[in-house]
Amino acid sequence: MKKLLVLFLLLASYSGFAQLADLDRVEPMFWFTKMHNNKLQLLVHGKNIAAKEVSLSYPGVTLQKVNKVENPNYLFLDLQISPQAKAGKFNIAFTQKGKKQLRYVYELKDRDTSANRIQGVSQKDFVYLLMPDRFSNGDLSNDVVKGLQETALNRDSMYYRHGGDLQGLINHLDYLKDLGVTTVWMTPAIENDMRKASYHGYAATDHYKIDPRFGTNALYKQYVETCHAKGLKVIKDVVHNHIGLNHWFYNDLPMRDWLNQWPAYTQTSYRDQPVMDPHASEADKKKMLDGWFVPSMPDLNQRNVYVQNYLTQNHIWWIEYAGIDGLRLDTYPYNDPEFMADWALKLKAEFPHLSVFGETLVNSVAAQAFFTGGNTVNRGFDTHLPGITDAVLKDAIYEGLNGKTGWVDGINRIYATLAQDFLYQDATQNCIFLDNHDMSRFYSVVGEDFDKYKMGMAMLLTMRGIPQMYYGTEILMKNFSAPDGLVRSDFPGGWPSDKVNKFIATGRTAQENEAFNFVKTLANFRKNSLALQNGKLMQYVPEQDVYVYFRFMPGQTNGTVMVIINNSDETKALNTRRFAERMGTATKAKNVLSGKELNNVETLQLAKKSATVLELY
Amino acid sequence: MKKLLVLFLLLASYSGFAQLADLDRVEPMFWFTKMHNNKLQLLVHGKNIAAKEVSLSYPGVTLQKVNKVENPNYLFLDLQISPQAKAGKFNIAFTQKGKKQLRYVYELKDRDTSANRIQGVSQKDFVYLLMPDRFSNGDLSNDVVKGLQETALNRDSMYYRHGGDLQGLINHLDYLKDLGVTTVWMTPAIENDMRKASYHGYAATDHYKIDPRFGTNALYKQYVETCHAKGLKVIKDVVHNHIGLNHWFYNDLPMRDWLNQWPAYTQTSYRDQPVMDPHASEADKKKMLDGWFVPSMPDLNQRNVYVQNYLTQNHIWWIEYAGIDGLRLDTYPYNDPEFMADWALKLKAEFPHLSVFGETLVNSVAAQAFFTGGNTVNRGFDTHLPGITDAVLKDAIYEGLNGKTGWVDGINRIYATLAQDFLYQDATQNCIFLDNHDMSRFYSVVGEDFDKYKMGMAMLLTMRGIPQMYYGTEILMKNFSAPDGLVRSDFPGGWPSDKVNKFIATGRTAQENEAFNFVKTLANFRKNSLALQNGKLMQYVPEQDVYVYFRFMPGQTNGTVMVIINNSDETKALNTRRFAERMGTATKAKNVLSGKELNNVETLQLAKKSATVLELY
Repeated sequence: MKKLLVLFLLLASYSGFAQLADLDRVEPMFWFTKMHNNKLQLLVHGKNIAAKEVSLSYPGVTLQKVNKVENPNYLFLDLQISPQAKAGKFNIAFTQKGKKQLRYVYELKDRDTSANRIQGVSQKDFVYLLMPDRFSNGDLSNDVVKGLQETALNRDSMYYRHGGDLQGLINHLDYLKDLGVTTVWMTPAIENDMRKASYHGYAATDHYKIDPRFGTNALYKQYVETCHAKGLKVIKDVVHNHIGLNHWFYNDLPMRDWLNQWPAYTQTSYRDQPVMDPHASEADKKKMLDGWFVPSMPDLNQRNVYVQNYLTQNHIWWIEYAGIDGLRLDTYPYNDPEFMADWALKLKAEFPHLSVFGETLVNSVAAQAFFTGGNTVNRGFDTHLPGITDAVLKDAIYEGLNGKTGWVDGINRIYATLAQDFLYQDATQNCIFLDNHDMSRFYSVVGEDFDKYKMGMAMLLTMRGIPQMYYGTEILMKNFSAPDGLVRSDFPGGWPSDKVNKFIATGRTAQENEAFNFVKTLANFRKNSLALQNGKLMQYVPEQDVYVYFRFMPGQTNGTVMVIINNSDETKALNTRRFAERMGTATKAKNVLSGKELNNVETLQLAKKSATVLELY
Repeated sequence: MKKLLVLFLLLASYSGFAQLADLDRVEPMFWFTKMHNNKLQLLVHGKNIAAKEVSLSYPGVTLQKVNKVENPNYLFLDLQISPQAKAGKFNIAFTQKGKKQLRYVYELKDRDTSANRIQGVSQKDFVYLLMPDRFSNGDLSNDVVKGLQETALNRDSMYYRHGGDLQGLINHLDYLKDLGVTTVWMTPAIENDMRKASYHGYAATDHYKIDPRFGTNALYKQYVETCHAKGLKVIKDVVHNHIGLNHWFYNDLPMRDWLNQWPAYTQTSYRDQPVMDPHASEADKKKMLDGWFVPSMPDLNQRNVYVQNYLTQNHIWWIEYAGIDGLRLDTYPYNDPEFMADWALKLKAEFPHLSVFGETLVNSVAAQAFFTGGNTVNRGFDTHLPGITDAVLKDAIYEGLNGKTGWVDGINRIYATLAQDFLYQDATQNCIFLDNHDMSRFYSVVGEDFDKYKMGMAMLLTMRGIPQMYYGTEILMKNFSAPDGLVRSDFPGGWPSDKVNKFIATGRTAQENEAFNFVKTLANFRKNSLALQNGKLMQYVPEQDVYVYFRFMPGQTNGTVMVIINNSDETKALNTRRFAERMGTATKAKNVLSGKELNNVETLQLAKKSATVLELY
């Protein structure tokens, strides 16, 4: 029976909608026992499936309701699964007078309660963000997969696939571990069967399937388990807002309002303001939330309860299936706020340790804070979103490194930005970063100035929040996002044919090794610094272009980390009397970057344009 | 007896500290019956006054405690005044064995419950800010007052006194009324007996006395009453944070910690951040709050309860005495937050209709909101401050008029700034402005571009909040604050010897009259527009350099005010379909500035660089 079903599903998946199978798919394909939420809504897709009677029989599982919708090719089955239900398989039967009965073998699996699964990511961690198509090609056999729409592989173009895959990433986990990375965040790996630019991953065409050019669901699970075995964690990048235009359900929508429909194509304004502005018009708010991101990405209607269930269950399924530690939520402000809050509560109920942060490319701390959970500014509405991608701090660091000193300009921008942390419930859950795949690379932004690079990296790795580095920053990869998208270049050495291999020290230039070791030193120091892992932040008003902050455990001087950014073009002798409150009884320090011991911390000698990281004792 | 006492006090006030009178002063000099707070603390200053026994006898008045402090020249008397106490006079006797008894005739007056007193200022109003020394000289006899330290009058210097006074202002109230002003805010008028720059008013040397070069306490009371009789309101400018170095109590401090004392002169950092930053050091916070504003302005220690009582009672005294409608609080962020919250509650208890806004020259909406009452971001601490001076909106308007359009630059800055109003409990209580005495004049900031001037003034007079205009802006007065302070120039025509008189139309140039009438038209329109007086704001995402907002009464189309800022260098035909939500059934409009009727509001013709203000119907 099972073999036949598999064959059937395989045929169905290649048949297209013109020849829709009588039972095309059931999603989630399987589920788990002892979930917090005892409800499950199965999406069933098949030719005129709504004409059939549905039945099942399994101890602890009740079919509560069969929902018919506009499109007869769909049924939504409301199941209740009691806490007593045991793992096992059972038939769901679809019966219609005069027709052969269809059956789907549904499985309930036991939840996996092994250690090191679904651990959450915190400021103890150091996240490495990569695009799987551009990191390493570990399996040449899946570079082009028959039946998928994009057929060409072209490493000379930034918009074609390059062949990177899960196996390539798995092959380099030791490289990341050596660098001091603790967590891998890969841009989305689920199927993007798009004709063009399918590599980027944000145009899903199947929510339950790893893109075959990256690997299989099983390989993804293996990747997560391999990470966990090596002491690494995994963040999954998920997209609530939109899908790809070739998504299997796009051409056979369950109902018209499965998507946000407009009389004529309407693009989002990309404006976060109407979502929070007490003076906003409904028209502007609707355009922001319901407008499409781009023409190739249909916008899901998250007020539709079937859509809500579909997305929420999909994410729960992946986490439980693979053991994922954290989620990054794409284009957070474009989603329906009520749905996202409900989603967050449901995820939290299933996975109390899971960490979540949302992408918020906005322009003020206030706007960022508005989207975070437990903030007090959102008029009584709690988003339940623990953290966001802290783009405003990134911009402040750019201004700090590139700008001219002013009251809140230059290095003072960083100080003034962090001073607004009172807007958050917990800013330590923000993902902090210097760049990512959607913007120019940090090293280019600072004009390939190695001093600025080091100051930026030192702040990234010692500041409050969860630090995230974009792949290749450790080897000084550069370029601007416009016009050529070269910020998504391949990691040199990731392909068997590559002439240079920057995964190994001998493949890197002296300066690249200096950069690599700079990151590695701080990243590994973090692993043993309680002050950086759990400590509070204290910052001082910058004076004469010198910005000083501390990370510390209250009541403890030993182990306090003191960071001094001398942003001026002059060497300085810094009298530390002003910092007595934090330096306490410390008389000595270890210079984390040089490894040297300091026997006097009353006056610190600072090189021009430098970051000094001291561990006091 | 009374005559003798007056003589005695007169002598005392001229005697100086070297010959301190046995009873130099009692403050507040008198008080009121039926105050909400039945406690009163009298400051008594006199030579070795602490050696004396104090007694009084009056029905309903109890001397609860005689507080002796470090300096024997002071006593602080705690009185309780029962609700039954009647207006009247009684002796406070100071007795010492072998010495003549001293007496102070204390008076309790009935509270004045006349109409039109202490009315509060709201967004119904239009505030005119002026410096009394620079507006008009109505009494030449008080230009130089013997016995005061600054002796020279020099209208050629921005730093000397020019001779303006209360009588000058009273003489021109009809001018203000004609312009459409509803409220006068004058920089502080209490005695500033400083050797230099005494004109500016922020260096008090006697909290209970109008500077004799401006007039008398009685004249101040008369000024307020004249305003009220003309339908104008009065804002008093009060300074909690500091005093002038020649303040009478500075050279004979009641106690060392009456002031914030430092081992060596320490100036404030002028940084609001340490007050709100959860990562701030105590050292930075102390420097901000307790550091002196400038060497000539000693910083009051607002954690000292005697100082607290002194300031709070002083403000209550002035309001009840003169009938003041609202207060502007100088240098708000530099004050002790707990004291200011307590102060605000006490003032509110006595005067429920009084309006209050604090000066907050800070750099973000978040920082401004932090200081306002009822905000939700201040970690559970309520400042009870209704409004602030909205410097961030001012900066946004500058950027809107002078900047280059960008995502949150140019005109979009105004939109993005107002979108952050969710941080406030009530942004309509903010005082909005384009300039004041501490910065370059608006007309100069926009490069004397008359189109920009009109756009700015149109926004000022139609936006949410309490609009405040700086004197002379209506006649295009200009200049930059640095280096010569010419932003505090005299109003032409305010002095008998002035050759031109811009208080009258014939004294103004054609362009000055155009500016005057522009302000006058909008200011007078405001008086009858419910939408501007009480209405909500709705703003739309700017598109193609056109920014549109509405002021409206919910559920009502008639009378809705539509403001269109065409910030581009091109004329535009604006299709209004996008604004259907606010325009409702309106088919016609009155152009407020031109007075013309529009019979079609589907498409609006916009001049380049223009503000259009329509009243829909």
